[in-house]
Amino acid sequence: MKHSSSDKLWQGRSSGDVADITVEIGQSIDLDIQLYREDIQGSRAHARMLEKIGILKREELDQILEGLTQVEGEIAAGQMTLRWELEDIHTHVENRLLELIGDPARKLHTARSRNDQVAVDTHLFVKKKAAALRFEILDLCRDLLAQAEKNIDITIPAYTHLQVAQPARLAHPLMAHFWSFFRDAERLQFALQQADRLPLGSGACLGVNYDTDREFLREELKFAAIYENSMDAVASRDHILNLLYAISVFGLHASRIAEEIILWCSVEFSFLKLPDSVTTGSSIMPQKKNPDLAELIRGKTGRLNGNLVNMMTAVKGLPLAYNRDLQEDRQPLLDSTYQAQLIVRSLRAMVQGMEFQDRNMQQSLEKGYATATDLADALVWEKQVPFREAHHAVGKLVAICEQNGHSLTSIPTSERSQAHPAFSDDAFYRRAVDPATSADRKRSQGGTAKSRIQEQFALARRKLEEAG
Amino acid sequence: MKHSSSDKLWQGRSSGDVADITVEIGQSIDLDIQLYREDIQGSRAHARMLEKIGILKREELDQILEGLTQVEGEIAAGQMTLRWELEDIHTHVENRLLELIGDPARKLHTARSRNDQVAVDTHLFVKKKAAALRFEILDLCRDLLAQAEKNIDITIPAYTHLQVAQPARLAHPLMAHFWSFFRDAERLQFALQQADRLPLGSGACLGVNYDTDREFLREELKFAAIYENSMDAVASRDHILNLLYAISVFGLHASRIAEEIILWCSVEFSFLKLPDSVTTGSSIMPQKKNPDLAELIRGKTGRLNGNLVNMMTAVKGLPLAYNRDLQEDRQPLLDSTYQAQLIVRSLRAMVQGMEFQDRNMQQSLEKGYATATDLADALVWEKQVPFREAHHAVGKLVAICEQNGHSLTSIPTSERSQAHPAFSDDAFYRRAVDPATSADRKRSQGGTAKSRIQEQFALARRKLEEAG
Amino acid sequence: MKHSSSDKLWQGRSSGDVADITVEIGQSIDLDIQLYREDIQGSRAHARMLEKIGILKREELDQILEGLTQVEGEIAAGQMTLRWELEDIHTHVENRLLELIGDPARKLHTARSRNDQVAVDTHLFVKKKAAALRFEILDLCRDLLAQAEKNIDITIPAYTHLQVAQPARLAHPLMAHFWSFFRDAERLQFALQQADRLPLGSGACLGVNYDTDREFLREELKFAAIYENSMDAVASRDHILNLLYAISVFGLHASRIAEEIILWCSVEFSFLKLPDSVTTGSSIMPQKKNPDLAELIRGKTGRLNGNLVNMMTAVKGLPLAYNRDLQEDRQPLLDSTYQAQLIVRSLRAMVQGMEFQDRNMQQSLEKGYATATDLADALVWEKQVPFREAHHAVGKLVAICEQNGHSLTSIPTSERSQAHPAFSDDAFYRRAVDPATSADRKRSQGGTAKSRIQEQFALARRKLEEAG
Amino acid sequence: MKHSSSDKLWQGRSSGDVADITVEIGQSIDLDIQLYREDIQGSRAHARMLEKIGILKREELDQILEGLTQVEGEIAAGQMTLRWELEDIHTHVENRLLELIGDPARKLHTARSRNDQVAVDTHLFVKKKAAALRFEILDLCRDLLAQAEKNIDITIPAYTHLQVAQPARLAHPLMAHFWSFFRDAERLQFALQQADRLPLGSGACLGVNYDTDREFLREELKFAAIYENSMDAVASRDHILNLLYAISVFGLHASRIAEEIILWCSVEFSFLKLPDSVTTGSSIMPQKKNPDLAELIRGKTGRLNGNLVNMMTAVKGLPLAYNRDLQEDRQPLLDSTYQAQLIVRSLRAMVQGMEFQDRNMQQSLEKGYATATDLADALVWEKQVPFREAHHAVGKLVAICEQNGHSLTSIPTSERSQAHPAFSDDAFYRRAVDPATSADRKRSQGGTAKSRIQEQFALARRKLEEAG
Repeated sequence: MKHSSSDKLWQGRSSGDVADITVEIGQSIDLDIQLYREDIQGSRAHARMLEKIGILKREELDQILEGLTQVEGEIAAGQMTLRWELEDIHTHVENRLLELIGDPARKLHTARSRNDQVAVDTHLFVKKKAAALRFEILDLCRDLLAQAEKNIDITIPAYTHLQVAQPARLAHPLMAHFWSFFRDAERLQFALQQADRLPLGSGACLGVNYDTDREFLREELKFAAIYENSMDAVASRDHILNLLYAISVFGLHASRIAEEIILWCSVEFSFLKLPDSVTTGSSIMPQKKNPDLAELIRGKTGRLNGNLVNMMTAVKGLPLAYNRDLQEDRQPLLDSTYQAQLIVRSLRAMVQGMEFQDRNMQQSLEKGYATATDLADALVWEKQVPFREAHHAVGKLVAICEQNGHSLTSIPTSERSQAHPAFSDDAFYRRAVDPATSADRKRSQGGTAKSRIQEQFALARRKLEEAG
Repeated sequence: MKHSSSDKLWQGRSSGDVADITVEIGQSIDLDIQLYREDIQGSRAHARMLEKIGILKREELDQILEGLTQVEGEIAAGQMTLRWELEDIHTHVENRLLELIGDPARKLHTARSRNDQVAVDTHLFVKKKAAALRFEILDLCRDLLAQAEKNIDITIPAYTHLQVAQPARLAHPLMAHFWSFFRDAERLQFALQQADRLPLGSGACLGVNYDTDREFLREELKFAAIYENSMDAVASRDHILNLLYAISVFGLHASRIAEEIILWCSVEFSFLKLPDSVTTGSSIMPQKKNPDLAELIRGKTGRLNGNLVNMMTAVKGLPLAYNRDLQEDRQPLLDSTYQAQLIVRSLRAMVQGMEFQDRNMQQSLEKGYATATDLADALVWEKQVPFREAHHAVGKLVAICEQNGHSLTSIPTSERSQAHPAFSDDAFYRRAVDPATSADRKRSQGGTAKSRIQEQFALARRKLEEAG
Repeated sequence: MKHSSSDKLWQGRSSGDVADITVEIGQSIDLDIQLYREDIQGSRAHARMLEKIGILKREELDQILEGLTQVEGEIAAGQMTLRWELEDIHTHVENRLLELIGDPARKLHTARSRNDQVAVDTHLFVKKKAAALRFEILDLCRDLLAQAEKNIDITIPAYTHLQVAQPARLAHPLMAHFWSFFRDAERLQFALQQADRLPLGSGACLGVNYDTDREFLREELKFAAIYENSMDAVASRDHILNLLYAISVFGLHASRIAEEIILWCSVEFSFLKLPDSVTTGSSIMPQKKNPDLAELIRGKTGRLNGNLVNMMTAVKGLPLAYNRDLQEDRQPLLDSTYQAQLIVRSLRAMVQGMEFQDRNMQQSLEKGYATATDLADALVWEKQVPFREAHHAVGKLVAICEQNGHSLTSIPTSERSQAHPAFSDDAFYRRAVDPATSADRKRSQGGTAKSRIQEQFALARRKLEEAG
Repeated sequence: MKHSSSDKLWQGRSSGDVADITVEIGQSIDLDIQLYREDIQGSRAHARMLEKIGILKREELDQILEGLTQVEGEIAAGQMTLRWELEDIHTHVENRLLELIGDPARKLHTARSRNDQVAVDTHLFVKKKAAALRFEILDLCRDLLAQAEKNIDITIPAYTHLQVAQPARLAHPLMAHFWSFFRDAERLQFALQQADRLPLGSGACLGVNYDTDREFLREELKFAAIYENSMDAVASRDHILNLLYAISVFGLHASRIAEEIILWCSVEFSFLKLPDSVTTGSSIMPQKKNPDLAELIRGKTGRLNGNLVNMMTAVKGLPLAYNRDLQEDRQPLLDSTYQAQLIVRSLRAMVQGMEFQDRNMQQSLEKGYATATDLADALVWEKQVPFREAHHAVGKLVAICEQNGHSLTSIPTSERSQAHPAFSDDAFYRRAVDPATSADRKRSQGGTAKSRIQEQFALARRKLEEAG
C-alpha cells in the first residue's frame, strides 16, 4: 500500500490552511483502514440479503461480491491509496467498488447508512479481537501452569508490604497470576457476549423503509442476537467500553507480574534469569540484563487505562442517537487491542524463558527470618511452651542472629540454646525452621502446602480444558 | 443532624504533629464503619467454623455470637465511638467484643488475618450492592417501559448531530434507554458472579496452619465458589473494579438520558414537563423549572469515572501479595455504590413524573422538515418520479416553505404545486408528510413502526420477567 | 518516505512469532520519527560542544553537520526507510549518519546517552508545540473578540440550568469563552517555562566523565536554564505532563463552546448559521447543517483526557532514574499536540464563519420571559409597589401570557392591565421589558451592560497585545 | 468520636422514598460545611461593601458582622446541626443569621447570588490550600536537603531499569526528589495565581443591577484581580482543576520516592531503616518493619488522579453559564487537598527519620559490578589500552568474579591479572574500581561528583530562600 495521506502524518500533517481543516479533522481513514476486513464482510452479507429480498438481481450480487473480493485483495496487498477527502473505510471501499463495477455498487447503499455500517464493523472487530486475545491469555495461563508444575519444589518468600513474610512454594505466586489472568479470559468472554448482537439494519437510527431481513443478516454474520432497538444500536458504544475495560484489567494484572519480574531480575533479589531474547544487556557484564519488556508492559498500563477514560469521557452526556463524537471510538479500540496483543506475547516469551535462581530465594528467606513464626508455633505446639514465652524466645534468637550475622539455619546449636533450651533439639529445630516444611503446614484449601498446590494444578487443567 | 464526630473532619483534621500522622493516614474507620454488617457476618461464620473444627468450644461460640449481636446493635444505634487509633472496622469490632466477653474474643483471631478479613468484607459488600443496584435498575427499566407504552402514539423527532432527522415514536428513544440500562443489569450480574468467591481462609496470604473448613465457610456465607489460590484471594481487587466499572457505564447511560431531559426541559425544546418534586423553580415564573436532578446525574459521571480511575491506578504495578495501598479501595467502593443509588432513584423519580408536550414535538418535526425525505421517496415510489427530479422538487418545496414561513404541513396547496404538480394530490401529499405514517414506514426489525415497537414491548416484558 | 514498517501496521502488525516480539514491543520509531527535527537539532548542538571542548576536530564537526543536514533532508523528503530493529529516531539518525560519513559519526556518541538524548528531544518538542499552540489560541481569542465587537448590539438569553435566565449581550458569552481560552494561553506559557530547562549532559543518569560545557549547550539550544540534577533530568516527565494538562483544559473549554455551537445550530434554538465549509448537509434541505466539527471537538475531550491519564498512570511508582516505561511518553505527547492543533483550527474556522440569527434569540427571550424579573424590579423602584405585590403582579401577568399565547412584549395593554394597573403605562412597561435595557442594567464591573462590555473589549485588546 | 451525624451516612442514608431523593441528591452540606470560614469571610466583605455603597446602614452592618462571628463560632464549636433540606453552607449560615439578627440578614442577599457566592468560597479555599501545601512541600524540600547534606559521603547504586548502573552519591537521588518537589511548589504557585481573581459581584451570571464596588471587595478579600467577565466567573472551574492537577503531580512524585523507600526497606535491599513511629512491625522480629506510610502514599496516587478525572469529566461539554453539575466540584477539591496534606506530612516524617545502611549499599554496588565501566575507561585513558581490548579484559574479569564468587574489590590480584596484566597495578586498579572516585568522575554540571553536588546544595538553599 502506498501511503499518500499518512506521509503527511509525521510531517506536521496540516498545511494550516483553514479551508482544509474540515477534511483533516473529519477523516478517520488513517485508523479505520484497519477495519477493512470487517467492512467488506458486512457488505457481503448486506448484498446477499438485498438479493434475497429482491432488491439486487442475482447477477448484480455476483458483480458486487466479485468486486468486494478484489477490493479486499488490493487493500491487503497495500495497493489502495488512502485519501482524506474520502473520509473513512466505508467510502474508500464503496468508491473503489464503483470504479470496478459501476452502477450495481450504488445499490449496495440501499437500506443501510454509515451509522449502522460503522456499528457492524466495530461489533465484528470487537468479537474477533476479544476471542483472539482470550485464546492468547489462556495460552499464557498454560505457560504459567507449566512453570508452576516444573518448579513446585522451589520455595520462595511470600511478601506482604514487600517484606519477606513466609515461605511459599514458587508455584503459589505463579498460580496466583494464573487465576487473575483466567478471570481476564472470563471478562473477555463477557465482552464478547455483550457485543454478539447485530446492529445492521438500523439505518440512520430508526430502522429502514424496507423489508430488511435482519435474521438473515444475523446468521450470515454469525451474531447470537439482534439489537432490539435501532437507536440503541447506532448510539451505543458499550461493546467497545466492555472490551477496553477487560483489556485494562488484563493490563493491570500484567503490570503486577511485570513488577515482580523487574524486582526478581534486580541484583538485590536475583531470583530470576530471563533469556537474552527478551532482555537488553551490556557487553561488559553479560550477567546483567535489563527487563525492558516487563517495564514496557508496566508502562503500557497507562495507555490502556487512558484509552478507557477516552471512550468513557467521549460518550458522557451525548443525547440520542448518532453524534459525530462517536467517531472517536476508533483510536482507543485499535490501540488497546494492539497493545494487549503486544503485552500477552511479551509475557508469554518471558514466562516461557524464566530460569529461577533457587539459592538466592533461600538467602532471602533466611535474611527475612521467614520461619521465625513457625518456630514460635512449634515451641507452643510441640514443646508445650506458653505462647508469650515462645515469642520471647524466638525474638531473642533473632536478635542473636542479627548481632552475629547468622540466619535461623546457620546459627550454631550452642548459640541458639542461649535463646531457649528447646532449641538444642536439633531434629525439632531443623524441621521447625525448614521453609518447605513451613509451606506444607499451610494446608488449608488454596494454601501453599504441596498437596493443595497439586489440587490447584488439577483444577487449573480442568478449567483450561473447559475454556477450550 | 448534630455534628460531633465529623467536627474534627472539617476543622482541618490534623494537628500537624508529625507524631500523629501515622495514625491519621493509616486509619480507615472513617469509611469502613460502613462495612460493619459484613464484618460481623464474616466473624459469625468464622466462629461457627472454628467451633465445627474444634478450636472453639460450644459455649465460647455462643458467647461470641451473642457478643457480635450486641456489637452490631450498638453500631446500628450509633453508639460506638470511633477511634482512629483502632484503625479499622475489624479492630473496632474485636476490641468491643473483647470488652464484652473477654478471652473467647481473642480466639476469634485464630486462622484468619486482616488480609482475608477485609477481603471477605468487601466481597460480601460488592455482592450485596451489585444485587441491590441491579434490582433498582430493573425497576427503572419498568418505569421506562410504562412511559413508552403509555406514549406510543406520540411522535417526536429523532436526532442525529442534534439535528432533527426523522419522526420517531416517542416510545422509541425511551426504549433505547431501556435496553442500555438492561445491559447495565447484565454487567452488574457479571460483577456479582466474579465476586461470588470466598476469600476467607487465605490467612495473611498463604493459607493457614489449620484444618480450616472453607467449604463450610462458603456455605455459611453463601458464596458460589472458593478462591483457588490464597495469594490471589488477598491481593486481587478485581471484584471491586468490576463493580466500579459497571457503575461507571450505568452512570454514562444515565448522563445520556439526563442530557435529553435537560434539553427537552429547555424553553427552546419544551418537550417535557417534570413535576415540582424533582425540579427547582421561580416564584414569578411557575412554568420555569430547573432540571437540577438531571444536571447532578450528568455531573456525577465524573465522580464515578474518577473512582474507577482511582482503583485502576492504585493496583497498577503492585507485586504480590498484600500491600497497604489496597486499603485505598474503600473510598471508591463506598462512594460509587452510594452515588449509583442516588442516580437510579433520581432517574426513577423523573421518569415516573414525565409529562410530554406533544404539540411542541410536532412543531420541531415541522421546523425540521422531518418528513422531507419521506416525501421525496413517496414521489419516487407512488408517483414514479425519477429520483433526481424528486429530490429537486422537494428541495424547491422546502425553499418555498423557508421563504414564506410555512411548514410542510401548513403550506397551502397552491404554493406546493409550484414545486411539483404531484404535490397537488392532497391525499397523497398528506400521507407522505405525516409523521406517524413516516414512523410506521420504518418497518424493519427494531425499527420505529408501531408494530415493531410493540414487538419490543413484548420482548422487554419477557426479559424483565426472566431477570426476576 | 517509504513506509516499510508501518505498512504492517494495519495488516495486523505482528507475525505472532514470539521471537520477534521483543523488537516489536520495543520499537518507538513509528512515533518518534516525528521528533526528527529536534533530534537532529540536539545532535548539532552536541557536536559543536564536543568540538569546543576538544573532543571533535574542526573537520570532523563539519562532516557531522553536513551529514546531519543531509539526513534531515532525506527524512523530510520521506526517503528514509523505517526499520523496527533500529528501534528509535536516535538510532535511525546515527545509523544513517554512519553510512554517510563513517567514523566521525561514532564520536558523536561521546558524553551523551539515549536517556538524555530523548529528554532533550522531547523538551525541545514540548517548547515548540506549547509556543505554537499558544499563538493559535491567541488568534482564536482575536476571532472571538472580533465577533463580539461586531455583534455587541444583539441580545441573547443567558442560561442557567439551560433555562433562559436573563437577557445578555451576545458579546458577553463570546467574551466568556475569550477569557477561558486566554487562561489556556497562560497555562501553555507555564508549561513552556517549566520545560525550558536543558537535560542534555546528564548522561545515562549521573552526568558524564567529561568536561561537558552545558552552558554552551544551553545557549545553542536556547534553553532558559539547566537541570540542576542529572537523575531528575532523565527521570522526570513533568514537562510532558504539564503540556498534556494544559491541552486537556483547553480541550474542555473547547468542548463547552462546541456544545453551545451544537445547541445553537439545532432547529429548536436556530441561533446560529455556520458556513458550508465547516458543516455537512443534506441535498434536500440546504438549511440543515450538521455541526460535525463541533461534535468532533467535543468528542476529542476524551482523547486528550485519556492521554493525560495515560502519562500520569505510567509514571506512578517508578523508582529513579530511567525506566523503560518512560518510552511510553511518545504516544500521548504526539497525539495530544496534534489533536489540539486540529481543535484550535476547527474552532477558528467556525468562529470566523458564525452568522447569528438575531430574531430567534429574541423569540427565546420572549418564550423564556427573560425580563419578568426586570419588570418586577421596575414596579418596586419606579412605581413604588411593595416587593411582594410586585412579584404577585408579574406572576399573574406571566400566567395570562401563558394562557393566551402572548409574550411579555406582544401582550396587548388591555390584558396586561388585568395583572396590575401600572402596566398600562406604556413607556414604563416597554422600557421595563426591553432586553437591551435589561442587559444595560447589569452595570457592575464585568457585567453585561454595554459600557462594561466595552471595558472588557479594551482590556482584552491590551492583554492580547501584551501576550504578543 | 461519637457518631451521630454520620449515622445516617453509613446506615444506607436514604429511606428509598422517592419523594426524598431530590433533597438527598441535591444537598452538598455534608461536604461544604468545610468551607464555612470562606463563606463567612465572603459574607463579611460583601456586607461591608453594601454598607459602603449605601444599601446597608451602619448599624445593620454591625449586626450582621456580629451575627456572622457568632455563627462562625458555633460551627467551629460543632454546635450547628446540619440539615439536608437547607442544602448547602450558604443557606445554613444565612438561616442561622436570620434566627440571630432577623431582618438585616435578608438584606445580605442583595446584589449577590449563590452562583457567585460558591465561586468566591472555592476561590478563597483554593488559594488558602495552595499556599499552605506549597509551604509544607518547601519544608519537605528542606528535610531532603538536610538528609542529602548529612549523607554526602555515602555512595549508593544509581539504577536504570532497576539494575545497578553506576555509583552515585546518596545525596544525588535525594536531591533529584528535591527538585521534582520544588517544581510542585511552582505548580501550586501557578494554581494560586490563576485563582487569585475575584468572582463575587457576578450575580447569577450577568452581573447585578447595583453599583457594586468590586474593587472594594477585591481589596477586602485580598484578590490580585477581578474576573473580567461575569459568565466566566460563575461557569469556570479552572481554579479547581489547576489545584487538582498540581496535587496529582505532587502525588506522582510522592509515589516515586515512596516506591524507593519500599524497595530500600526490603530485606533484599536493606538500604534504609525507618523509625518505629512511621512503620508497623512484628513482635518477634523487631528488625522487620512494614513501610505502610510509603505504601499508602503510593496508593493515594489513584485517589488524586481519580479526583482530577472526576472534575475534568464533569465540566466536559457544559454550556454557559452555571449548571448544577458544577456542584460536584466539592468532593474532589476537599478530598485532594486533605489527602495531599496527609501525604506531605507522612513523607516529612519518613524523610526526617531515615537511617541509611551504608554497608548494604556497598554490597549492591559490588554485586552489580557498578564500576566495571569505570575500569574499562581507566584502561583506555590511563593505560592506553585500545577500547575494544579494554572492554574484553573487563568482561573477562567480571566472568572470573562471577565464577569464583568475588566482587571487583574483593578479587585477589593474582586472579585479576589473568584478565589483563595492567590489573596487577594495585594503585591504578583500586582507584579505578572505587565507587566514590567513580562518582567524582561524573564532573559535568548537575553530575554526581562531590563538587557538583555541593553546587546543587548552594543552588537549592538559594531557591528555598527566594521561595520564602
